[in-house]
Amino acid sequence: MDQKTTIYDIAKKLDITAATVSRALNNNPKISEATRKLVLETAAKMNYKQNRLAQSLRSGKSNNVGVIVPRIDVNFFSSVIRGIEEELHPEGYHVIICQTHEDEKREIENITTLMNAQVDGILMSISNMSKENDPVIKHVVDKNVPLIFFDRKKKMDGVSSVTIDDFEGGYLATKNLIDAGCTRIAHFSGDRSLEIYENRFKGYEQALKDFGLEWNPDYVIQTKSNVDAGRNAVTKLLSLPNPPNAIFSSSDFAALGAIQELKENGIKIPEDFCVFGFGNEPFTRFLELSISSVDQSPLEMGRMAAKVFLEQISNTDNIKIEKKVVLKPELQIRKSSTR
Amino acid sequence: MDQKTTIYDIAKKLDITAATVSRALNNNPKISEATRKLVLETAAKMNYKQNRLAQSLRSGKSNNVGVIVPRIDVNFFSSVIRGIEEELHPEGYHVIICQTHEDEKREIENITTLMNAQVDGILMSISNMSKENDPVIKHVVDKNVPLIFFDRKKKMDGVSSVTIDDFEGGYLATKNLIDAGCTRIAHFSGDRSLEIYENRFKGYEQALKDFGLEWNPDYVIQTKSNVDAGRNAVTKLLSLPNPPNAIFSSSDFAALGAIQELKENGIKIPEDFCVFGFGNEPFTRFLELSISSVDQSPLEMGRMAAKVFLEQISNTDNIKIEKKVVLKPELQIRKSSTR
Repeated sequence: MDQKTTIYDIAKKLDITAATVSRALNNNPKISEATRKLVLETAAKMNYKQNRLAQSLRSGKSNNVGVIVPRIDVNFFSSVIRGIEEELHPEGYHVIICQTHEDEKREIENITTLMNAQVDGILMSISNMSKENDPVIKHVVDKNVPLIFFDRKKKMDGVSSVTIDDFEGGYLATKNLIDAGCTRIAHFSGDRSLEIYENRFKGYEQALKDFGLEWNPDYVIQTKSNVDAGRNAVTKLLSLPNPPNAIFSSSDFAALGAIQELKENGIKIPEDFCVFGFGNEPFTRFLELSISSVDQSPLEMGRMAAKVFLEQISNTDNIKIEKKVVLKPELQIRKSSTR
Repeated sequence: MDQKTTIYDIAKKLDITAATVSRALNNNPKISEATRKLVLETAAKMNYKQNRLAQSLRSGKSNNVGVIVPRIDVNFFSSVIRGIEEELHPEGYHVIICQTHEDEKREIENITTLMNAQVDGILMSISNMSKENDPVIKHVVDKNVPLIFFDRKKKMDGVSSVTIDDFEGGYLATKNLIDAGCTRIAHFSGDRSLEIYENRFKGYEQALKDFGLEWNPDYVIQTKSNVDAGRNAVTKLLSLPNPPNAIFSSSDFAALGAIQELKENGIKIPEDFCVFGFGNEPFTRFLELSISSVDQSPLEMGRMAAKVFLEQISNTDNIKIEKKVVLKPELQIRKSSTR
């Protein structure tokens, strides 16, 4: 690396301070666009090579924050990320994103990748509950890098979290189906080793109990969060001797598959069968037969997770802060459950 | 930083080689899961602090690749990223993602962020054509960090690109509308300073010419890629003295808005009006009135961009390689243009 040109040379050339050059090179928002441009162009002309890595080693601050999500192509997660960026960008932080594809090995790799990239904090939604990644997560905490879980969390000392009340979401969605007159309500559950799915299931179960409806174990099917999984699960339900007349699905994608399969079987929605989803993916309102769903306030969740990070990073005392924020879910009642 | 424990201490403790420890710590896929776990746990117990940054400074290789896209919440981009990951992960590379929100300042920041994180390469889809970011992009090329544009590119020396033939996409979509009997075909264009939109427009124009249809400048409207923009554009078109009877939209989202607005105006699709989108977003096929669209082979595009990166990174000669790959678009003809 050519280290001959320094920020002091650039400062001298432009007759500004080295601090200003440094801020401009680091995209500090306090520097005007004109100055930043001038400094960048001059630096390029003078063949200046910014050794930010060495700089990070000295200052210990990269102004980068890592976000790990299971998948970026789910609107919920991309919206959380938007919320995080909206909150962190004005504070001078840049967000870099990794996805795990629900794979725990990838999760470990992502954490390592972000730590190697010297991020100042990690905001993540856990992909699964295996203990496999505990040492890597613990390593982040031990290094005093703020770590915040959102939506899907593990119970770990020193880690803050921002979640929604999934129990209440499940309860309210099921209650809406009961209010619509449905009597035999099935449930599509995700992997219940993840708290979010377990809590949605428990909310469903509690609502049935509170309103005196029978709970039928054949009505609870573990499905993946995709259209085909929803179709297959409905096929199973329809083959039961006493099939259900409603589904509360933990996934909007599975709910969509269910609706497609029900229609192909000549079953009328909402007249003969009601469906409630979870996640409020945009397609749920685009469809002609719009799908009722539980909104998880992803933007708010992202902003809140970012705020917790900012709080922790500005905490100069050597105290571990652990903060648990729980947001309220909100029902979006649409055609698929309105009679 | 505590530097007392070294990989040699861990190697000694486990009676394996230091190289194995290093590979395990760096998640090298050649190391078995059991060994990796053992090394990680031992490293944690021995309070080993991996100084990968210093290591990067020495080796100049981070095994991280940066991807920059305008938005992650567009299926096209998330699918390209999936393709990139599918190709790079088996090669031991980790992908970190940044989004620009179509903002050129963010684009500059993202490039700087990724360079600071010592990525081994950058794969990006340009957000706009301003010359503002040229020095930063040039800096990447000058540092011999492989840079590959996908979908949206700039003409820059030493930068490879993977795109689709947008002209042909625009031509074929327009031809499909003509074949369906549409005679007055409007066009929703994106920002035509971006080549992709200019080429889709030119394909549209050429098809009209080839089939002897009149080109009406009032029929070409620049819209953003969202539902509301599509609605507003249709309102304008319907107020013309001689409104069109078809739209070829450069965006599926704008096409969806157009369809919603047309329906609310009592116009029957496809009987009285046909619509063709671009991008093949999943919702186009989920809708009851499914939307015809141009597929851009995003997975293939991502894989190809990754392959070009791998070619460049393994090029040990000091020769700049510039490769241009152009993929063929494919029509998905659905209800919105089938009579």
